[in-house]
Amino acid sequence: MSITIVGTVAFDAIKTPFGQTDKIIGGAATYIGYAAAYFYKPIQIVSIIGGDFDMNEIQEMNNRGIDTQGIEVKHEGKTFFWSGSYHMDMNSRDTLVTELNVLLEFNPILPENYKNTKYLLLGNIDPSLQLKVIEQMTERPKLIVLDTMNFWMEPDFLDTLKKVIAKVDVVTINDAEARQLSGEYSLKKAAKKILAMGPKYLIIKKGEHGALLFNENEMFSAPGLPLDEVFDPTGAGDTFAGGFIGYIAKQDDISMETLKSAVIYGSTLASFCVEKFGTERLKSLNETDIQSRVQQFVTLAKFNL
Amino acid sequence: MSITIVGTVAFDAIKTPFGQTDKIIGGAATYIGYAAAYFYKPIQIVSIIGGDFDMNEIQEMNNRGIDTQGIEVKHEGKTFFWSGSYHMDMNSRDTLVTELNVLLEFNPILPENYKNTKYLLLGNIDPSLQLKVIEQMTERPKLIVLDTMNFWMEPDFLDTLKKVIAKVDVVTINDAEARQLSGEYSLKKAAKKILAMGPKYLIIKKGEHGALLFNENEMFSAPGLPLDEVFDPTGAGDTFAGGFIGYIAKQDDISMETLKSAVIYGSTLASFCVEKFGTERLKSLNETDIQSRVQQFVTLAKFNL
Repeated sequence: MSITIVGTVAFDAIKTPFGQTDKIIGGAATYIGYAAAYFYKPIQIVSIIGGDFDMNEIQEMNNRGIDTQGIEVKHEGKTFFWSGSYHMDMNSRDTLVTELNVLLEFNPILPENYKNTKYLLLGNIDPSLQLKVIEQMTERPKLIVLDTMNFWMEPDFLDTLKKVIAKVDVVTINDAEARQLSGEYSLKKAAKKILAMGPKYLIIKKGEHGALLFNENEMFSAPGLPLDEVFDPTGAGDTFAGGFIGYIAKQDDISMETLKSAVIYGSTLASFCVEKFGTERLKSLNETDIQSRVQQFVTLAKFNL
Repeated sequence: MSITIVGTVAFDAIKTPFGQTDKIIGGAATYIGYAAAYFYKPIQIVSIIGGDFDMNEIQEMNNRGIDTQGIEVKHEGKTFFWSGSYHMDMNSRDTLVTELNVLLEFNPILPENYKNTKYLLLGNIDPSLQLKVIEQMTERPKLIVLDTMNFWMEPDFLDTLKKVIAKVDVVTINDAEARQLSGEYSLKKAAKKILAMGPKYLIIKKGEHGALLFNENEMFSAPGLPLDEVFDPTGAGDTFAGGFIGYIAKQDDISMETLKSAVIYGSTLASFCVEKFGTERLKSLNETDIQSRVQQFVTLAKFNL
């Protein structure tokens, strides 16, 4: 049994109202992998990097139970690089630089021992690549989670994205994306339309306002934990997804009740992620940190009528 | 024992993406009163109206247990009138018309039997008037709740507003207002600064994202109930405040635990309010409607780790 993650492993340069970084390690699969590894091993990553990547980071992943044989190294190429600058409200950002580099050649080929994975997480990436990954599975995974974004909802990609959506169990997007994808302003109506496209579950991420989980019959609202400071939101959504699938794999259960708890664990990991630049805080956690913050979520949401 | 509400009783003309109304009954005290009356009686309203107001509405208030002797009728004057148009997202609106009319002459004089009220709700109005009401109390109420808005946080009014804030127990504002009043972007830090101004509790209303309740040591997050449609948000914040104070008066308890439940009841009443124009839906509820929607909030927020 394993968790397989498909997504970018990258360099980021980040500017926030609190400071800025040079090139640091980023990428969706990186955040997802580090978060999921707190709950379950092995994690298997499918990605692509250039010869400029820091191989110590790959070693670090391995040390944390992340199998990296699915990360293709193009020695002559350069790693995907993104640079962005956040506005004061931390909810919006400007992209300063996007250098796709080796990502342009990414054609995910799964190692044999990844093809019967039980839990598959498709990080935000071109939906045609997500589809290729699903097609390589020799057994249908117990749960496929799809993360995507508004870019892939534009006319050029929408048909392919819808094909992927029809094949997965859980879709995670933000509220603006749920509205765009469904054409409905009401999130309740939007959820109904998106679930009609195929998935059993929809998660709508609302940043500081928490997250909503929908299935056909039920809704769950996870609170956003008010924090003293959001230092760097980069990777928060990916970290959420990693904590979410890691917790589910640990429980090995895909009921609505387990998914509710998984949303709380995902939110917990994401709340740490934003406290420092990049993966720094995410990588520094222990079991007590996680459990004590989960308890903060419990207290935050609890009332007795 | 009673609940006393100070605020506007008015006419509104509302335009939303779903339709528009001619002059209909509105005003903060109207919404607060109708909501609170589902939980507790008598409700006493302090306000001012003109000779053009519909006296059948006053009769309706009386029938619902709302004492209106504190509503001054200026027969030669015209009732406060507001007209606004909501944008597609229902979170923002343009004010089309504001005719203050008799509100310009409003000098709240409390009837003798209002002066020892146990629960005082100061609806959104000029803070100098809110202050005058507090000063007329012969006994300090058990709980004073203050609702206000960004307009009164501008330099001309801020000092007076801060004097009122120092004298109340609960402040209810929205997230943008909490940021403006405190100068802090983090709502957790904003709450700390606002509580340092005097009140024991702060409620931050976040519209569709629910509400946060803070005291010195604890935070509570009430979810926003996803609705099929938000038809008209007018009065939702006032309705929230009315359900909130009504529930507290019914319990006659002002602990954090009771206030958490009161936030859920306030949210419940507000979720009905937005389903139709004006006070229409708010006025049509019964006990079963309220309890069954409260249960939806319970289900929405519940998880078991």
